[in-house]
Amino acid sequence: MKRKIIQSAINISSSDENIINEMTKNIGQIPGCLIADYSYDVDHNRSVISLLGDEQSLTKAVFAIFEIALESIDISHHHGEHPRIGAVDVIPFTPWGSATMEDCITLAQSIGKEVATKYSVPVYLYGQAALIPEHEDLSLIRRGGYESLLQEIHRVADRKPDYGLARLHPTLGAVAIGARKPLVAFNVNLKSTDIKIAKEIAKKVRGEYGGLTRVKSIGVNLKSRNQVQVSMNLLDFRMSTVVQAYELVKIEAHRYGVEIQGSEIIGLIPLECMVDIVGFYLSIPDLKISQVLEYHFLENFD
Amino acid sequence: MKRKIIQSAINISSSDENIINEMTKNIGQIPGCLIADYSYDVDHNRSVISLLGDEQSLTKAVFAIFEIALESIDISHHHGEHPRIGAVDVIPFTPWGSATMEDCITLAQSIGKEVATKYSVPVYLYGQAALIPEHEDLSLIRRGGYESLLQEIHRVADRKPDYGLARLHPTLGAVAIGARKPLVAFNVNLKSTDIKIAKEIAKKVRGEYGGLTRVKSIGVNLKSRNQVQVSMNLLDFRMSTVVQAYELVKIEAHRYGVEIQGSEIIGLIPLECMVDIVGFYLSIPDLKISQVLEYHFLENFD
Repeated sequence: MKRKIIQSAINISSSDENIINEMTKNIGQIPGCLIADYSYDVDHNRSVISLLGDEQSLTKAVFAIFEIALESIDISHHHGEHPRIGAVDVIPFTPWGSATMEDCITLAQSIGKEVATKYSVPVYLYGQAALIPEHEDLSLIRRGGYESLLQEIHRVADRKPDYGLARLHPTLGAVAIGARKPLVAFNVNLKSTDIKIAKEIAKKVRGEYGGLTRVKSIGVNLKSRNQVQVSMNLLDFRMSTVVQAYELVKIEAHRYGVEIQGSEIIGLIPLECMVDIVGFYLSIPDLKISQVLEYHFLENFD
Repeated sequence: MKRKIIQSAINISSSDENIINEMTKNIGQIPGCLIADYSYDVDHNRSVISLLGDEQSLTKAVFAIFEIALESIDISHHHGEHPRIGAVDVIPFTPWGSATMEDCITLAQSIGKEVATKYSVPVYLYGQAALIPEHEDLSLIRRGGYESLLQEIHRVADRKPDYGLARLHPTLGAVAIGARKPLVAFNVNLKSTDIKIAKEIAKKVRGEYGGLTRVKSIGVNLKSRNQVQVSMNLLDFRMSTVVQAYELVKIEAHRYGVEIQGSEIIGLIPLECMVDIVGFYLSIPDLKISQVLEYHFLENFD
């Protein structure tokens, strides 16, 4: 029998190892909640904790994270390369196994209401959980980051939160909570320190500017690594693939005589996506997911 | 609790769709035996059925296959590009979950004895199930194919079978049964019809001739596809990787101005191997198997 599994990749505006370790330590004690992966990035000043669980355990995990964020993160003093609106910045829910998108929408709404009430944090429901069309696209909710939202929240119509007052929490800021399909967070680092080049390439790859329809991308300066990066979210890896994203970055970098230094997958990547990548690079157009041995050992899985 | 899972990729000297379908139909009725994959190749005149099960179900599956082979395959009239010694040519066992190599060796021996007695088929135990060092290497057991074994079985010391009389069965021939680590069967097709080129490349890639230590390879003529192929067995994908094999074939083909037409994975490929391939082609040296989402849904798995 398939189990209900909901995935959440919680984005936190901190790269402080101690804070993230404290969060994962507390989450680790919640029955039924699995920490599948976590990572922090100093330049993005951002961390991602990838969880798998059911409604109850994920709700507990979200509040465990908020409790620690409340004590230790002040978004009003936050600096980082990545656009953000809150200490706990984004909480997405994605269905697996017998879980449905409807389950994820319901969970996003119930956690959203509780967060808004308990912490007086304005909550934006995004993706398939959005209550208004203007909030479907996460990048529009986060446009201009915390600083812009601080100026606009009380006077621009579509910046009014879905839950809570139109007033940012002094240290937690705001939070976007949503339901969405699996997303692949994929960053490509360049052998260059020129942020303009990364931004130009990001533009070329990004859907809005004529690039890949279901790709969001930004140029990021990785000061600690003396590199720049094209940081991408692949919102639908079946429509706009990892291979397309990687190869397009490589091609566009060629304009500047710039090579790729390396890549990163932040958090988790679906097996189907792995099969597509291997099929491409080894020229096996009909490679099947069922040819992956462990596929047959999967249980509770859609 | 981890379950005992034994994998078997049974190699059959036939590409007759009806025969293979009859085999999979019968195996499909055996409780506890999963048909993970099967494929036939006209040019190799060979099929591979990949099974996952326990000792009891796999034993039943092997005998179901032999019963159909006995009725429908005559190895003395068999033609095909791939070296073979029997109608049911090779039966390997590989441990997963809580199964051990020792379990696979025991299974190979018990099935081997029964096959030799029941069908008067000479049985060679190979790989880690080998009783004599000369039989460890499957390619040595199959050297020269059925035709050579027919001449030598009764008069060459190391061609004497481990079980059964030193006399080939008139239609079934002989069979190699073994225990081994996971193997990746990987074929690369060339944009060429020159079998000499495929054979030269196969030599360059093959361990014995200075190529990749744990790779066996042969050149094969794919008449029906008007191509030649480098057909490889990767005996230890951690030591000699799929990436190395693919890229070396590509490089050696360059000597002849020949390009790659496409590749094939025959049967199953372990997830760990997929992660290695993706990590290479996307330049992610530290990609972890635990970043594959479904990895966390695996149960009963080592």
